[in-house]
Amino acid sequence: MSVYTASTTAPVNIATLKYWGKRDKTLNLPTNSSISVTLSQKDLRTLTSAACSETFKEDRLWLNGKEESLSSERTRACLGDLKKLRSELEAADASLPKLSTYGLHIVSENNFPTAAGLASSAAGFAALVVAIAKLYKLPQDMSELSKIARKGSGSACRSLFGGYVAWEMGDQTDGEDSKAVEVAPLGHWPGMKAAILVVSDDKKDTPSTSGMQLTVATSDLFQHRIKDLVPKRFVEMKESILNKDFPTFAELTMKDSNSFHAVCLDSYPPIFYLNDTSKKIIKLIHKLNELEGEVIAAYTFDAGPNAVVYYEEKNESKVLGFLYKVFHQVEGWKKQEVPSTLNFEFDDQLYKGVSKVILTEIGPGPQETEESLVNELGLPK
Amino acid sequence: MSVYTASTTAPVNIATLKYWGKRDKTLNLPTNSSISVTLSQKDLRTLTSAACSETFKEDRLWLNGKEESLSSERTRACLGDLKKLRSELEAADASLPKLSTYGLHIVSENNFPTAAGLASSAAGFAALVVAIAKLYKLPQDMSELSKIARKGSGSACRSLFGGYVAWEMGDQTDGEDSKAVEVAPLGHWPGMKAAILVVSDDKKDTPSTSGMQLTVATSDLFQHRIKDLVPKRFVEMKESILNKDFPTFAELTMKDSNSFHAVCLDSYPPIFYLNDTSKKIIKLIHKLNELEGEVIAAYTFDAGPNAVVYYEEKNESKVLGFLYKVFHQVEGWKKQEVPSTLNFEFDDQLYKGVSKVILTEIGPGPQETEESLVNELGLPK
Repeated sequence: MSVYTASTTAPVNIATLKYWGKRDKTLNLPTNSSISVTLSQKDLRTLTSAACSETFKEDRLWLNGKEESLSSERTRACLGDLKKLRSELEAADASLPKLSTYGLHIVSENNFPTAAGLASSAAGFAALVVAIAKLYKLPQDMSELSKIARKGSGSACRSLFGGYVAWEMGDQTDGEDSKAVEVAPLGHWPGMKAAILVVSDDKKDTPSTSGMQLTVATSDLFQHRIKDLVPKRFVEMKESILNKDFPTFAELTMKDSNSFHAVCLDSYPPIFYLNDTSKKIIKLIHKLNELEGEVIAAYTFDAGPNAVVYYEEKNESKVLGFLYKVFHQVEGWKKQEVPSTLNFEFDDQLYKGVSKVILTEIGPGPQETEESLVNELGLPK
Repeated sequence: MSVYTASTTAPVNIATLKYWGKRDKTLNLPTNSSISVTLSQKDLRTLTSAACSETFKEDRLWLNGKEESLSSERTRACLGDLKKLRSELEAADASLPKLSTYGLHIVSENNFPTAAGLASSAAGFAALVVAIAKLYKLPQDMSELSKIARKGSGSACRSLFGGYVAWEMGDQTDGEDSKAVEVAPLGHWPGMKAAILVVSDDKKDTPSTSGMQLTVATSDLFQHRIKDLVPKRFVEMKESILNKDFPTFAELTMKDSNSFHAVCLDSYPPIFYLNDTSKKIIKLIHKLNELEGEVIAAYTFDAGPNAVVYYEEKNESKVLGFLYKVFHQVEGWKKQEVPSTLNFEFDDQLYKGVSKVILTEIGPGPQETEESLVNELGLPK
């Protein structure tokens, strides 16, 4: 029995211009273009192995050590597209094994807790698509594959690239022009760092898929956001990245996070992702920038209370010293130098709202790996 | 020595279509029209006595038992306008005493704690203007006087009327058409009730005067709110009041509160008035309406975390029974009947975020009163 296998890792990405709203729910076509920074896989990544064999009767999936149903339409859409591309290769070259007709085993693991609300579905679908594309030896490039990952989870398409990535919304109804593209590679502006403050929350508000559709359907301010604001910001943010202009990039990032949460609040019933801890972190970052007299740090919040703070490596000691003063009791980081002259007013209980600090940085796209999660039988190790 | 005195009471009003943004800071001219419900003075009112005498050398002001400086430009603008109107009367009729040249003593008291963030400045400026207008025997009607109160505190102009009140923004640069008018008198729809949940907060965010100007200057979504959304809502909300259509009135009220807080969040740096307790109250009211299968209660939040919940008298037992289940430990209200069948999920610690419940209802405008806060010398009793 031949078992074919392939493995890849894929990164998490955190949007700096937010994706919020679908114009097509099945194809995951967005109502606006978005931009993200891909984060280092040292800290956050999904490792996925794909295996197929003539003897596998069905497609199976294991996530973080547990077999999961493959009934999700989104996953099935990805597998369907990948098998179709493989079958086209096989039709063109009869010597190829008919992998497209075999059952698929997919085994996937994150190196971080899924529950933390850290965009794990983006890394997950990106890794799934890339691992199978590799298994199938598909010739499509990352932008092409990103359209498949997009059907799994919209923001997953951006995890097909490293560095600075745009998801161009496109305007075709079939979604063929709604894909990820590189704005700038990692090497263009490599010093981008991120401090993730994992915020404890008693209960997550509306899941993002239903939340964004509620916003599309009910928020009066939303139409203005997607028609007038985001298109302009999309151009300006790409330019700020190409110019390595951190203050502009940071201000656009913070404003877009606020604008996204504003349209959530303007939904009916309103959706709240920021909690009191998130709001105090926002105030802190503005305070840091005010104390420094320039914008050296930017917060952004996805559909949850966790803060991602972007900053440049050259300002690391300033940013981490400031944050350490407030959050030194929190696990996940080593002691940072706090200047003895650093004095500002803050809630000395605020650290209790943060369960973990993750220090990371910009990183590359999906990576080759020698690790494999499947054994010679094509089953989880 | 003759001491002339006059006293009045004036109510608090809570906007259902929010005033947020000035187009003229000195004249307090707003960027949009607004609508409010005037609340009963049994629970919340300011009592103001004004006195003048030829022997009073200067204008003096006592608030809640303490003499305050009269240097505030806003108060001076009100006094200036009132004295000018009086001097016109005196010029036309030489037999009138020259009250406009006398010093004024103003003594004012609230029947509720100022600190609670309950629109005390609206009642305060309304009472000040009406008391002095009465002292001066000015012939101007309430809409005319509302333009003077507006210069003291924008929303004060709406406290010149009872029932349902609109503040028409006007478009003249001198503000002469920016005034309060009656949408419908108290008697038109008398069953409007309000439950105020006073929410504890560690620190107030930006004061509303500077907050609204920050929003005007920095929020991209704000322009859409004032140009496209509020003008439409203003017409619809007046209509819902004239039709006594509670579900429509309630939905517009909730949406406008959310929209106002959304543009606060979209300001840069963002402004937050809702805290985690406020957000949970919002969710509760949506839950109540969902359980009832119709909209019987509406929340609204001003520039602070306090919730005002409007409902109709006919639904009082449903609304208060529901709220009592969650907030029965809070002071300020008597036992309410909670149906034994009423079951829903809620945070059983939520009541700790609420310091007081005030049950009140729609009420009349400024009232004649026999109470006086000044003695025969024109000094505070």
